[in-house]
Amino acid sequence: MRYSTVSVNNVGLFIIAEVEEVCKRLMSHKGVEGVIIINQEGIPIKSTLEKNATIHHSAHLHQVAQKAKSTIREIDPQNELTFLRIRSNKHEILVAPGISYRIIYTVGI
Amino acid sequence: MRYSTVSVNNVGLFIIAEVEEVCKRLMSHKGVEGVIIINQEGIPIKSTLEKNATIHHSAHLHQVAQKAKSTIREIDPQNELTFLRIRSNKHEILVAPGISYRIIYTVGI
Repeated sequence: MRYSTVSVNNVGLFIIAEVEEVCKRLMSHKGVEGVIIINQEGIPIKSTLEKNATIHHSAHLHQVAQKAKSTIREIDPQNELTFLRIRSNKHEILVAPGISYRIIYTVGI
Repeated sequence: MRYSTVSVNNVGLFIIAEVEEVCKRLMSHKGVEGVIIINQEGIPIKSTLEKNATIHHSAHLHQVAQKAKSTIREIDPQNELTFLRIRSNKHEILVAPGISYRIIYTVGI
Protein backbone atom coordinates (compact mmCIF):
# COMPACT_ATOMS: atom_id res chain seq x y z
CA MET A 1 0.00 0.00 0.00
CA ARG A 2 1.39 3.45 -0.94
CA TYR A 3 0.83 6.29 1.54
CA SER A 4 0.63 9.60 -0.35
CA THR A 5 1.93 12.65 1.48
CA VAL A 6 -1.60 14.06 1.17
CA SER A 7 -3.04 11.27 3.30
CA VAL A 8 -0.18 11.64 5.80
CA ASN A 9 -0.87 15.40 6.02
CA ASN A 10 -4.58 14.73 6.39
CA VAL A 11 -3.77 12.48 9.39
CA GLY A 12 -1.72 15.40 10.80
CA LEU A 13 -4.58 17.87 10.26
CA PHE A 14 -7.04 15.41 11.76
CA ILE A 15 -4.91 15.05 14.91
CA ILE A 16 -4.48 18.81 15.29
CA ALA A 17 -8.24 19.33 15.05
CA GLU A 18 -8.82 16.51 17.53
CA VAL A 19 -6.22 17.93 19.93
CA GLU A 20 -7.85 21.38 19.79
CA GLU A 21 -11.22 19.81 20.59
CA VAL A 22 -9.82 17.75 23.50
CA CYS A 23 -8.11 20.82 24.94
CA LYS A 24 -11.27 22.94 24.71
CA ARG A 25 -13.42 20.21 26.26
CA LEU A 26 -11.03 19.65 29.18
CA MET A 27 -10.62 23.35 29.93
CA SER A 28 -14.43 23.64 30.16
CA HIS A 29 -14.43 21.24 33.12
CA LYS A 30 -14.61 22.85 36.56
CA GLY A 31 -11.29 22.76 38.38
CA VAL A 32 -9.11 22.07 35.36
CA GLU A 33 -6.25 24.55 35.62
CA GLY A 34 -4.20 23.67 32.57
CA VAL A 35 -3.89 21.24 29.68
CA ILE A 36 -0.80 20.09 27.81
CA ILE A 37 -0.93 17.65 24.91
CA ILE A 38 2.35 16.00 23.95
CA ASN A 39 3.32 13.56 21.22
CA GLN A 40 4.86 10.15 21.89
CA GLU A 41 8.34 11.70 22.18
CA GLY A 42 7.17 14.16 24.84
CA ILE A 43 7.14 17.17 22.53
CA PRO A 44 4.24 19.53 23.33
CA ILE A 45 1.67 19.85 20.51
CA LYS A 46 -0.81 22.07 22.33
CA SER A 47 -0.82 23.82 25.71
CA THR A 48 -2.77 26.30 27.75
CA LEU A 49 0.32 27.06 29.90
CA GLU A 50 2.98 29.61 28.99
CA LYS A 51 5.92 28.41 26.93
CA ASN A 52 8.60 27.71 29.56
CA ALA A 53 6.17 25.97 31.91
CA THR A 54 4.90 23.87 28.99
CA ILE A 55 8.39 22.74 27.99
CA HIS A 56 9.42 22.10 31.60
CA HIS A 57 6.29 20.20 32.64
CA SER A 58 6.15 18.18 29.38
CA ALA A 59 9.69 16.90 29.72
CA HIS A 60 9.27 15.78 33.32
CA LEU A 61 5.77 14.34 33.05
CA HIS A 62 6.69 12.48 29.86
CA GLN A 63 9.45 10.73 31.81
CA VAL A 64 7.12 9.76 34.66
CA ALA A 65 4.57 8.40 32.16
CA GLN A 66 7.29 6.45 30.32
CA LYS A 67 8.55 5.00 33.63
CA ALA A 68 4.99 4.02 34.67
CA LYS A 69 4.37 2.47 31.24
CA SER A 70 7.56 0.40 31.30
CA THR A 71 6.90 -0.65 34.90
CA ILE A 72 3.45 -1.98 34.03
CA ARG A 73 5.01 -3.89 31.11
CA GLU A 74 7.86 -5.19 33.36
CA ILE A 75 5.35 -6.50 35.90
CA ASP A 76 3.10 -8.03 33.21
CA PRO A 77 4.07 -7.91 29.51
CA GLN A 78 0.37 -8.53 28.60
CA ASN A 79 -0.74 -5.42 30.44
CA GLU A 80 -0.89 -1.75 29.38
CA LEU A 81 -0.88 1.61 31.22
CA THR A 82 -4.26 3.33 30.76
CA PHE A 83 -4.14 6.29 33.16
CA LEU A 84 -1.83 7.97 35.67
CA ARG A 85 -2.83 10.26 38.56
CA ILE A 86 -0.12 12.16 40.43
CA ARG A 87 -1.61 13.84 43.49
CA SER A 88 0.24 16.47 45.50
CA ASN A 89 -0.55 19.02 48.19
CA LYS A 90 -1.50 21.67 45.64
CA HIS A 91 -3.11 19.83 42.72
CA GLU A 92 -3.58 16.57 40.84
CA ILE A 93 -1.88 15.92 37.53
CA LEU A 94 -3.64 13.41 35.27
CA VAL A 95 -1.94 11.74 32.34
CA ALA A 96 -3.98 9.90 29.72
CA PRO A 97 -1.62 8.01 27.43
CA GLY A 98 -3.05 7.66 23.92
CA ILE A 99 -1.84 6.12 20.67
CA SER A 100 -0.73 9.26 18.84
CA TYR A 101 -0.51 11.73 21.74
CA ARG A 102 -0.72 12.06 25.52
CA ILE A 103 -3.07 14.33 27.37
CA ILE A 104 -1.82 15.91 30.59
CA TYR A 105 -4.10 18.11 32.67
CA THR A 106 -3.92 19.65 36.09
CA VAL A 107 -6.86 19.83 38.47
CA GLY A 108 -6.84 22.11 41.50
CA ILE A 109 -7.45 20.56 44.91
CA MET B 1 20.04 14.85 73.37
CA ARG B 2 21.29 11.21 73.58
CA TYR B 3 19.31 8.51 71.71
CA SER B 4 19.72 5.13 73.49
CA THR B 5 19.68 2.07 71.25
CA VAL B 6 16.60 0.93 73.22
CA SER B 7 14.60 3.93 72.03
CA VAL B 8 15.84 3.38 68.45
CA ASN B 9 14.74 -0.31 68.62
CA ASN B 10 11.40 0.75 70.07
CA VAL B 11 10.87 3.00 67.00
CA GLY B 12 11.66 -0.06 64.84
CA LEU B 13 9.18 -2.24 66.74
CA PHE B 14 6.57 0.51 66.57
CA ILE B 15 6.91 0.74 62.77
CA ILE B 16 6.71 -3.05 62.33
CA ALA B 17 3.53 -3.19 64.39
CA GLU B 18 2.09 -0.25 62.44
CA VAL B 19 3.05 -1.86 59.12
CA GLU B 20 1.35 -5.14 60.10
CA GLU B 21 -1.79 -3.21 61.02
CA VAL B 22 -1.82 -1.22 57.75
CA CYS B 23 -1.35 -4.41 55.75
CA LYS B 24 -4.18 -6.22 57.54
CA ARG B 25 -6.53 -3.25 57.17
CA LEU B 26 -5.83 -2.84 53.44
CA MET B 27 -6.21 -6.55 52.68
CA SER B 28 -9.64 -6.45 54.37
CA HIS B 29 -10.86 -3.97 51.73
CA LYS B 30 -12.86 -5.46 48.88
CA GLY B 31 -10.88 -5.67 45.63
CA VAL B 32 -7.43 -5.27 47.17
CA GLU B 33 -5.33 -8.01 45.61
CA GLY B 34 -1.97 -7.42 47.24
CA VAL B 35 -0.05 -5.10 49.53
CA ILE B 36 3.66 -4.32 49.64
CA ILE B 37 5.20 -1.95 52.16
CA ILE B 38 8.67 -0.64 51.35
CA ASN B 39 11.10 1.62 53.19
CA GLN B 40 12.44 4.87 51.77
CA GLU B 41 15.16 3.00 49.86
CA GLY B 42 12.61 0.74 48.17
CA ILE B 43 13.41 -2.33 50.28
CA PRO B 44 10.29 -4.36 51.06
CA ILE B 45 9.39 -4.50 54.78
CA LYS B 46 6.15 -6.42 54.48
CA SER B 47 4.31 -8.07 51.58
CA THR B 48 1.38 -10.30 50.81
CA LEU B 49 2.92 -11.29 47.45
CA GLU B 50 5.43 -14.11 47.01
CA LYS B 51 9.10 -13.26 47.33
CA ASN B 52 10.20 -12.76 43.71
CA ALA B 53 7.11 -10.73 42.80
CA THR B 54 7.64 -8.60 45.92
CA ILE B 55 11.27 -7.84 45.05
CA HIS B 56 10.47 -7.20 41.38
CA HIS B 57 7.42 -4.99 41.97
CA SER B 58 9.09 -3.04 44.82
CA ALA B 59 12.12 -2.12 42.76
CA HIS B 60 10.10 -0.87 39.79
CA LEU B 61 7.35 0.91 41.70
CA HIS B 62 9.88 2.58 43.98
CA GLN B 63 11.51 4.11 40.89
CA VAL B 64 8.17 5.37 39.52
CA ALA B 65 7.32 6.91 42.90
CA GLN B 66 10.78 8.53 43.14
CA LYS B 67 10.38 9.93 39.61
CA ALA B 68 6.91 11.29 40.40
CA LYS B 69 8.18 12.81 43.66
CA SER B 70 11.12 14.56 42.00
CA THR B 71 8.88 15.75 39.15
CA ILE B 72 6.46 17.41 41.57
CA ARG B 73 9.44 19.08 43.30
CA GLU B 74 10.91 20.14 39.91
CA ILE B 75 7.62 21.75 38.90
CA ASP B 76 7.15 23.44 42.30
CA PRO B 77 9.79 23.11 45.06
CA GLN B 78 7.10 24.09 47.65
CA ASN B 79 4.91 21.14 46.68
CA GLU B 80 4.95 17.46 47.75
CA LEU B 81 3.73 14.18 46.24
CA THR B 82 0.85 12.78 48.34
CA PHE B 83 -0.50 9.90 46.27
CA LEU B 84 0.12 8.05 42.97
CA ARG B 85 -2.39 5.94 41.01
CA ILE B 86 -1.17 3.84 38.10
CA ARG B 87 -4.12 2.39 36.22
CA SER B 88 -3.75 -0.36 33.62
CA ASN B 89 -6.02 -2.74 31.73
CA LYS B 90 -5.86 -5.36 34.49
CA HIS B 91 -5.63 -3.44 37.79
CA GLU B 92 -4.81 -0.21 39.55
CA ILE B 93 -1.64 0.20 41.58
CA LEU B 94 -1.81 2.81 44.34
CA VAL B 95 1.27 4.22 46.03
CA ALA B 96 0.97 6.20 49.26
CA PRO B 97 4.33 7.77 50.05
CA GLY B 98 4.84 8.19 53.79
CA ILE B 99 7.63 9.50 56.01
CA SER B 100 9.17 6.21 57.16
CA TYR B 101 7.68 3.83 54.57
CA ARG B 102 5.65 3.61 51.40
CA ILE B 103 2.47 1.63 50.96
CA ILE B 104 1.83 0.01 47.59
CA TYR B 105 -1.39 -1.90 46.97
CA THR B 106 -3.06 -3.37 43.94
CA VAL B 107 -6.80 -3.19 43.30
CA GLY B 108 -8.49 -5.38 40.73
CA ILE B 109 -10.53 -3.71 37.99
